[in-house]
Amino acid sequence: MQRYFVKNHAIRGKSALIQGRDHHHIKNVMRMRPKDKVYLCDENENVYLAEIAVISQQEIVLNIIDQIDHKSELEVSTTIALGLTRREKQEEVLKRITELGASGFLTVALERSVVKAGEKSDSIRERHWSIAKEAAEQSHRRRIPSIYGHFSFPDFLNFSEQFDLCLFAYEEAGRKGDASLKSIIRSFRGKSVLALVGPEGGFSQKEAEVLMQRGFVPVGLGPRILRCETAPLYIMSAFSYELELKDES
Amino acid sequence: MQRYFVKNHAIRGKSALIQGRDHHHIKNVMRMRPKDKVYLCDENENVYLAEIAVISQQEIVLNIIDQIDHKSELEVSTTIALGLTRREKQEEVLKRITELGASGFLTVALERSVVKAGEKSDSIRERHWSIAKEAAEQSHRRRIPSIYGHFSFPDFLNFSEQFDLCLFAYEEAGRKGDASLKSIIRSFRGKSVLALVGPEGGFSQKEAEVLMQRGFVPVGLGPRILRCETAPLYIMSAFSYELELKDES
Repeated sequence: MQRYFVKNHAIRGKSALIQGRDHHHIKNVMRMRPKDKVYLCDENENVYLAEIAVISQQEIVLNIIDQIDHKSELEVSTTIALGLTRREKQEEVLKRITELGASGFLTVALERSVVKAGEKSDSIRERHWSIAKEAAEQSHRRRIPSIYGHFSFPDFLNFSEQFDLCLFAYEEAGRKGDASLKSIIRSFRGKSVLALVGPEGGFSQKEAEVLMQRGFVPVGLGPRILRCETAPLYIMSAFSYELELKDES
Repeated sequence: MQRYFVKNHAIRGKSALIQGRDHHHIKNVMRMRPKDKVYLCDENENVYLAEIAVISQQEIVLNIIDQIDHKSELEVSTTIALGLTRREKQEEVLKRITELGASGFLTVALERSVVKAGEKSDSIRERHWSIAKEAAEQSHRRRIPSIYGHFSFPDFLNFSEQFDLCLFAYEEAGRKGDASLKSIIRSFRGKSVLALVGPEGGFSQKEAEVLMQRGFVPVGLGPRILRCETAPLYIMSAFSYELELKDES
């Protein structure tokens, strides 16, 4: 069933009101009719089952039938930072990590990034937000990941201070007997994680040193070399596997 | 460092001989020179560090310097079967699961597959094999995943009998208190797993029933709805996380 993220004020007691883009989507793209049902998610991560009552030229009125309890958000808020790479790769990563439960996404200019931040930051953020919204709707999330935009390396280091735990995927890590991602997830008792994945060429020696000085923990992701598009999916899958799947054996 | 998969007979004691496509790649694409080094993987999953000695018009002679012990293959052989979907999606999945350690890949015609198997099976297999080879080289695998091609549903069921464990990703599974992927991986003592992921529309009720009758175990992959391109990556990441990452905490 189709799912729409709405502002809190769209939910009015036992009914709801949809305007703007979602109105267009329901009326003209999905061509829904009165009595069709949709899910509505408000800004407080409440999810409602609602039935369409009236479709007018400007708005859609719905009746709220039920509130849904199904938990679909990771307990640990996980933000993925990606070394700046080609736009299609960024978008691919953003789409997949949204399905996998990420709470936030941003890009960072690193020494070995082969592309430069070109487009205006605002237009990229808007585009990223649309991608995250669509993926959140399709994967039945209760919230849209936060889109933080693009950061220089120094700005990123400052930004990172708000997180309980900062990681970076470092090939060298697995080999030196550093902490593995598994020990880290299992022993973590905080609420928010920031995980940085380098661009195609990885991190420079200097970047790795600075990250460690600033408290980032280097983690290995197994014995194979993962591409920069694959590593974030591995990290998100690992968090979901460890925290969300039950072991009844 | 560049990595090439070679036939066993290419390794001759302390030297090695490369011809054909890899000769072209080393000479004309990478423009390597004598004294440059590469990794060579033979058909028995041995990996050698080799130094180029001579580059001629027809072949490249290398000296073997060392044999590499770094383990890069999953202990459990994991084959991913994907409900037939668009070619780009198949290729995307194949690339990523190869990086993540899959042992094999195939597609299956399912009721809700929106595309039909069009191209000649041989040409698809050849294309898939090239994609798997390249991804295996880049991710430092010791072997190229087996490319089994495209199957009808009945043929797939027969094919599945050679595996110690067969799974299928079933949305309904997580909700009904069925075994989770985590309990299954943790209690598994066999050697080979086949994991089937449906096409965009999922499995029909009838397919799900037949699969269960034939011994396939339905597994949930967490509380969100994953796309058919994302579910195989979650499964592969879960196997790697559980079997390859250490918990020293």
